[in-house]
Amino acid sequence: MTAVHVPAAKRRPAAVVAAPLELPVHGQVRAVIDAVLPAVDGGRFAVKRIAGEPVPVEAHAFADGHDAIRVRLLWWAEGAAAEEIEMRPTHNDVWLASFTPPLPGSYRYTVTAWVDAFQSWRQELMRRVEADDIRVAAQVGARLIDAAAARAKGDDHGALKKWAAALRLQAAAAPADASAADAAGALKALALQAPLAELADRYPQREHAASFAPELPLLADRPKARFSTWYEMFPRSAADEAGRHGTFRDVIKRLPYVADMGFDVLYFPPIHPIGRDKRKGKNNAVNAEPGDVGSPWAIGAAEGGHKDILPELGSREDFRRLVAQANALGIEIALDIAFQCAPDHPYVKQHPQWFRWRPDGSVQYAENPPKKYQDIYPFNFETEDWRALWQELKSVFDHWIAEGVKIFRVDNPHTKAFAFWEWVIAAVKREHPEVLFLAEAFTRPKVMHRLAKLGFSQSYTYFAWRNSRDELTEYFNQLNQLPGRDTFRPNVWPNTPDILNEQLHGGLRSVFGARLVLAATLAANYGIYGPAFELMEGAPRQPGSEEYLDSEKYQLRRWDLTRADSLRELIARVNRIRKDNAALQADTELRFFPTDNEHFVAFAKRTQDGKNVILTVVNLDPHYRQSGWIDLATDWLGLEPNAAYQVDDLLNERSYIWRGSRNFIMLDPLFTPAHVLRLRRSVRSERDGDFFQGQPG
Amino acid sequence: MTAVHVPAAKRRPAAVVAAPLELPVHGQVRAVIDAVLPAVDGGRFAVKRIAGEPVPVEAHAFADGHDAIRVRLLWWAEGAAAEEIEMRPTHNDVWLASFTPPLPGSYRYTVTAWVDAFQSWRQELMRRVEADDIRVAAQVGARLIDAAAARAKGDDHGALKKWAAALRLQAAAAPADASAADAAGALKALALQAPLAELADRYPQREHAASFAPELPLLADRPKARFSTWYEMFPRSAADEAGRHGTFRDVIKRLPYVADMGFDVLYFPPIHPIGRDKRKGKNNAVNAEPGDVGSPWAIGAAEGGHKDILPELGSREDFRRLVAQANALGIEIALDIAFQCAPDHPYVKQHPQWFRWRPDGSVQYAENPPKKYQDIYPFNFETEDWRALWQELKSVFDHWIAEGVKIFRVDNPHTKAFAFWEWVIAAVKREHPEVLFLAEAFTRPKVMHRLAKLGFSQSYTYFAWRNSRDELTEYFNQLNQLPGRDTFRPNVWPNTPDILNEQLHGGLRSVFGARLVLAATLAANYGIYGPAFELMEGAPRQPGSEEYLDSEKYQLRRWDLTRADSLRELIARVNRIRKDNAALQADTELRFFPTDNEHFVAFAKRTQDGKNVILTVVNLDPHYRQSGWIDLATDWLGLEPNAAYQVDDLLNERSYIWRGSRNFIMLDPLFTPAHVLRLRRSVRSERDGDFFQGQPG
Repeated sequence: MTAVHVPAAKRRPAAVVAAPLELPVHGQVRAVIDAVLPAVDGGRFAVKRIAGEPVPVEAHAFADGHDAIRVRLLWWAEGAAAEEIEMRPTHNDVWLASFTPPLPGSYRYTVTAWVDAFQSWRQELMRRVEADDIRVAAQVGARLIDAAAARAKGDDHGALKKWAAALRLQAAAAPADASAADAAGALKALALQAPLAELADRYPQREHAASFAPELPLLADRPKARFSTWYEMFPRSAADEAGRHGTFRDVIKRLPYVADMGFDVLYFPPIHPIGRDKRKGKNNAVNAEPGDVGSPWAIGAAEGGHKDILPELGSREDFRRLVAQANALGIEIALDIAFQCAPDHPYVKQHPQWFRWRPDGSVQYAENPPKKYQDIYPFNFETEDWRALWQELKSVFDHWIAEGVKIFRVDNPHTKAFAFWEWVIAAVKREHPEVLFLAEAFTRPKVMHRLAKLGFSQSYTYFAWRNSRDELTEYFNQLNQLPGRDTFRPNVWPNTPDILNEQLHGGLRSVFGARLVLAATLAANYGIYGPAFELMEGAPRQPGSEEYLDSEKYQLRRWDLTRADSLRELIARVNRIRKDNAALQADTELRFFPTDNEHFVAFAKRTQDGKNVILTVVNLDPHYRQSGWIDLATDWLGLEPNAAYQVDDLLNERSYIWRGSRNFIMLDPLFTPAHVLRLRRSVRSERDGDFFQGQPG
Repeated sequence: MTAVHVPAAKRRPAAVVAAPLELPVHGQVRAVIDAVLPAVDGGRFAVKRIAGEPVPVEAHAFADGHDAIRVRLLWWAEGAAAEEIEMRPTHNDVWLASFTPPLPGSYRYTVTAWVDAFQSWRQELMRRVEADDIRVAAQVGARLIDAAAARAKGDDHGALKKWAAALRLQAAAAPADASAADAAGALKALALQAPLAELADRYPQREHAASFAPELPLLADRPKARFSTWYEMFPRSAADEAGRHGTFRDVIKRLPYVADMGFDVLYFPPIHPIGRDKRKGKNNAVNAEPGDVGSPWAIGAAEGGHKDILPELGSREDFRRLVAQANALGIEIALDIAFQCAPDHPYVKQHPQWFRWRPDGSVQYAENPPKKYQDIYPFNFETEDWRALWQELKSVFDHWIAEGVKIFRVDNPHTKAFAFWEWVIAAVKREHPEVLFLAEAFTRPKVMHRLAKLGFSQSYTYFAWRNSRDELTEYFNQLNQLPGRDTFRPNVWPNTPDILNEQLHGGLRSVFGARLVLAATLAANYGIYGPAFELMEGAPRQPGSEEYLDSEKYQLRRWDLTRADSLRELIARVNRIRKDNAALQADTELRFFPTDNEHFVAFAKRTQDGKNVILTVVNLDPHYRQSGWIDLATDWLGLEPNAAYQVDDLLNERSYIWRGSRNFIMLDPLFTPAHVLRLRRSVRSERDGDFFQGQPG
């Protein structure tokens, strides 16, 4: 390890050490706020929540000694006025309150606390028994009430003055003889009257209040950030006839098909002009043949760049019509934003300084030696002209937002500067807080989490590579943990155009079914790449490869959507179950249960109020019928330990009577990949034998 | 819940929201430091460590894409120059380095990271295979080396220029014909030469380096903060003759007795003049009888206050002699600092504004209704004159530091303002970083932890009330957890003058022995209140009370130190074991092991290098012989799963051959409360049957 000494002048001079430590500015502050939760990295990043949903906040607050404190939550929309909410003590110095950010946007919250002289006095008075003590206490109280009166407005001022005078009068009149105890009791009762306490509480002495630093940021997204169901497709493959390039008009015809399956986000790979220079051929051949359509991610050509539409797909008006038609069916269009250029992208000539140039006068293409991507020029985020680059890239988002797009899937954000993402997401959301960003970063865990902290609304996950019971359990338990849980919203995909997991290679219906149910019930946000998924496309380019053979990334494909074995009905049913059950629409309440057969993975999600509970058991064996026992946490499910209850299989339309924690499962992959069970709580009536009274949640 | 609206003017104007987000100042920074550990509350408080011991620091750092980064740890003593240490990558974007604060004091550390253009280039070059690529890469490298040369000094400048020229020359000379591959190979080998890399690494391009904010504080204490063995006694009870008031001279005679038992801190209750006004009598009687000596915590009388010595104890010179004699025997004197006053303390007349006055013209004494402590006036930390109060209280520490005292046990710090403690401890330590503070706060957990964060070097614990196996396991596992572990150093006491735990009431030798072994082996810092402890004093004032009958807090006591049943020899042996075994001198490596008999608690401590391991098994049943099995974590102990090994009982001078994880224990409280076993690792030699070769750790 090298040790380099930095000259002392760069740091404080050594002489400072000997100087006495100065006193703080506010020495009379006695309340302490030790912690405010939630917080991400001590307030460096925003906690993510949903607009319109309560945000419970916890403060750890106390003061020295036995004095009472009051604690208030302060919250405000950035730039707006703060609102204060009284926090209530629970146990162990934990105080709670919640606020509800009404709209998508940026918020801040913090906590203030102060020693409450009046409440401290009142609490002590309650425990006083001696007449003398009560008399003195009444006088002390009168002082405090006078002080509150001085802070009060309108009628309250006079009312408080009267209380103070009444206490003084009765304290002075209290006899010292045998009736002293009775008089003191009456005085104490007077001083403790609830209306006085309520009145005085309204005008607390807050001069020495403590405030928690920093003011913690919160990002409120619209509910779609929490719960969304994605369908990815290549518009160019949407033509009905083989060989014709698909258009937005074809996609408009496809919309009912997508809507019927229950998807609410329709996501397209880049729709821009595709570079001709160094264009890749079918199956990623280095040289394109005449007529090859190229990769949509090789963005930019003579026709334009990131703000333009590939002419073969249609016009700007066609796109607008597509957006409108989709919206009418409850579907949002999501675009892929890939910040990279084909060699013939107009940026390359207009802004050569945004690229890295090699000594031979060529632009540095993307590479990961010995692999080369000659058709892709990355931006150089170290360019001296970074300000113009950043503003131009932001204008790409602005452009498509103006065209009605509110959701962006960002391609490989981890290969662009992190500082850029933090700025651009905040800058876009400041103007359009409803916009959502999905990070496509299949990389190391800390990098993925950093991107989530920087503002990405949702993130792709390792789900495609988590297949066994133990892998799934470990991974989703990790995702469900703090601190990641406050920023990282998983979006789970069984396949993508880049990921044909080995499990899918056989094209087995049972595997596709199981992966669908897993994705849809484990994660509130999930998606499939279709029609490859519902048609169980499973042929890899080479054995062991995760690339599709004849991938749509490099050529047109025609899909027979009418195939009898299509999974579209299963998908529709699963998505219907998601829409009907709030438990599946959030990721906060997930629990796995032990199974004695490792082919079963069993888990449940519940709403925070526990009213809706969906229990899923998936048979991970694609070939054989499996049976075994699962061991439920009845307490977590809100069940009596040994009571009977009904579970309704929403996937297979059957019901079962179960009892207690251990229950038997048998699943045959020929018939169904899973149980998706809604719990009915039993209310056993001893009297009339009316066994089941629970309502579906 | 009340909601109070604060006028918008108090916050940012709403108009700001609409303004576009400004660009950051440094947009070209591509390295990211996501976290630096350890850190307490995001850097709000100092991490506590020991001077002279390495502080491992972990950084989570990365950049976008595949570029190499370099990461450096910066650390400095407050006010001094920073030193940089190169961090090394481990796995998962975690980088490690450590620094060693040489002396007690305040330090800061942070991390800097940058994208390393030269190393990135070098790593790519290693993977390049095509001759053309290598030639271009050599030219790119030459540019980078030129840039490094421009930053270099002296001979290195010229050397780098030569490297750049050599690369250019050889790249230009590389033929394009059949020998191109060979020439490219030679060029690549030249470019990758280690001396070039070493030279270039010395002059990195750091213009766009990232720095982690904030600069994290660290408090380095002397080793005594980590490992100390305390003995508390009342000097006034140190006289040989019954009835005579003990003196410092008597304590000097007592020093060898304390030293022989192996204690290195001798702590006295307050030694100041004791108030006469409202003095309490024996057994806390409300009114003192003539001749009653009062409570040492009722500080201050005509003779003086917190900086003065009770005349009956001796002179200032006697105290100095005592400090010197103690030091000569390896013992430090610790004083009790109780910031409160008897009614006749000089402060009350000199600084009436430091106290709370009641409407009847009297000073508010301490009370917790209906309990009253008329002999104690607390300071009013809300006084407008708080600056003078704080400075005066600091001067009390300064006074006794000047008299040679470097350890203070602070009485009830949680009933004084927290802000005061943060300031006074920092202020004292700035001038005397060797001073240690023990917080006597038996209060709620978050309050105790806050005091530790504010700077207290050690803290009393709930140990006295943790008696069963499960209570001890849960409590010490909690203490051993982050984040408390970075600030809270437990100091564990089986008894104090205020705490005669019910377990001790019988005065049973087996109970005192077990509690001693538990305290001394569970915690690196522990203490006893003697001679009450070694003489097994167990009589409470009332049944069920934690107060001693005839407590020294209110009267003189005479102790027969020569009693045959004294625990002094057991104590001496236990403290000798602590001195001989580094495992018992820190609290970082503690592990409990399951036992099948709940009367046994079994745990081990080890040094961080694993060389010294002490395994303790205590029989918590004071009456009966118990037997059962313990289940060791052989891996954690550094043992082969099924190998045999020897354990040497340091308490009972016996050795046992054990094997693997499960071993049998039998302990009879008549003979010993515990095993304290030092592990010898077996090295089984297959050849010569020489079974045990391990050395005692």
